[in-house]
Amino acid sequence: MTGTVYLVGAGPGAADLLTLRAARLLERADVLFHDALVSREVLALASRAAKVEVGKRSGKLSTAQHFINKRLVDAARKHEVVVRLKGGDPLLFGRAHEEMAFLKENGIAFEIVPGVTAALAAAAELRTSLTRRGLSRSVAFLTTRAAPGEAPNDWLRTAVAADTVAIYMGAGEADSIRRDLLAAGKPAATPVAVVENASLPEASFDFGTLDRLPEIAARGSGGPSLILLGEVFADAAIIRAWPSARSSSLPTAPVIPIGRGRSGALR
Amino acid sequence: MTGTVYLVGAGPGAADLLTLRAARLLERADVLFHDALVSREVLALASRAAKVEVGKRSGKLSTAQHFINKRLVDAARKHEVVVRLKGGDPLLFGRAHEEMAFLKENGIAFEIVPGVTAALAAAAELRTSLTRRGLSRSVAFLTTRAAPGEAPNDWLRTAVAADTVAIYMGAGEADSIRRDLLAAGKPAATPVAVVENASLPEASFDFGTLDRLPEIAARGSGGPSLILLGEVFADAAIIRAWPSARSSSLPTAPVIPIGRGRSGALR
Repeated sequence: MTGTVYLVGAGPGAADLLTLRAARLLERADVLFHDALVSREVLALASRAAKVEVGKRSGKLSTAQHFINKRLVDAARKHEVVVRLKGGDPLLFGRAHEEMAFLKENGIAFEIVPGVTAALAAAAELRTSLTRRGLSRSVAFLTTRAAPGEAPNDWLRTAVAADTVAIYMGAGEADSIRRDLLAAGKPAATPVAVVENASLPEASFDFGTLDRLPEIAARGSGGPSLILLGEVFADAAIIRAWPSARSSSLPTAPVIPIGRGRSGALR
Repeated sequence: MTGTVYLVGAGPGAADLLTLRAARLLERADVLFHDALVSREVLALASRAAKVEVGKRSGKLSTAQHFINKRLVDAARKHEVVVRLKGGDPLLFGRAHEEMAFLKENGIAFEIVPGVTAALAAAAELRTSLTRRGLSRSVAFLTTRAAPGEAPNDWLRTAVAADTVAIYMGAGEADSIRRDLLAAGKPAATPVAVVENASLPEASFDFGTLDRLPEIAARGSGGPSLILLGEVFADAAIIRAWPSARSSSLPTAPVIPIGRGRSGALR
């Protein structure tokens, strides 16, 4: 028997932001491969499955990826339903390409189950649309990272051109991101938000302007976070100045205070 | 009593790509506002709700949007759970900004439930990662459209700069998109895919290169579709040449045939 490998988006973190299809596959899974960030609540859905944690450590990426690839193939040769759970969506910064290529090489059937990507959960925390008629018609999702030996990552042109930008895995590089963006002509006053643990109870966010990005990012507690840039976030900054979503009026001046918010406070 | 308005992502179309949170809110909804594209299967989840179709017709956008805004507020003043269902994710081309602003002005509480956006479902149909180490580190989601009277839409710089591009609502403008991209320096040989009805049983896709985008887009049957561009899709084109996902080897030459595929054929 050869089974199928399902590359499944786990969504941004909250268990109830799994899709129905993902939840049903977890219930049916014989083997579940997951990383360290997946919650107990999500793991509990896979009640029948042997669970294999395949967290990757930086610096040993390629070895670990090869090992995961091989384990997926081995599992599919013994079991019917093999689920490879990936944070967010598998096809956006999920490193799915390597796994799909290896599965194909080995003649293993696979399917992709898309998921809610982190930037959309971050936008939901900020209650701010990434697009807006007349203001933002393009949204770039990017990472500034490139592994040693990889082709150079030409993220900067895209980040300067796009109306709204979501930078994945960037909070630890806020200094160089700020410097590079300013040097490339992104205005220092560009509104910025940093959202940490989007969709989780401990979600929080900071905001301000690009020139102060490093201090905003530094206030995080080290959880998974996203940097968001663009004029659409000027509103988020204004809203933040008001404690309740039920305020009957909003200031119209472009006040952009810097402060740490708990998303719960806006609800 | 004043209720809460939930702006809920319906995902790309398949009912089981709703999130668990979205499904539970539909079950609890007193009133459901939805557009014409939502499936019967999704509507059936909202068994208690009064259903209001608020499809918009082009050319009367602003009038219709104002009318929807007002109806959302009226509903929240009478009911506890008001769900505004939006295709994909509410904060990515969902026109949520206008509704949120109006709800705030009127003191109505609201929450955002993120969803699976169409481009990720399209990538899943093609079984192609939008990002790839060493090849694609930035993905732009954009529309080329701008309503009359709006600020000009400067999408082209972003589309040229980003490694991978997903163009929403563009299949009807394939001619001008091709012309503008080529004039701006995007190579004529850039791999292109057009995915229609992503995630639905009738999903289909075409692919080829940018210089042939109009003929590829023209083969669609008029369903919701996405244009995808970038080197990551060279693989999809190669895979397409092989009828079964279980092929034990793949051609390595960059053959990019043009042909219409049914997504089921790859599974």
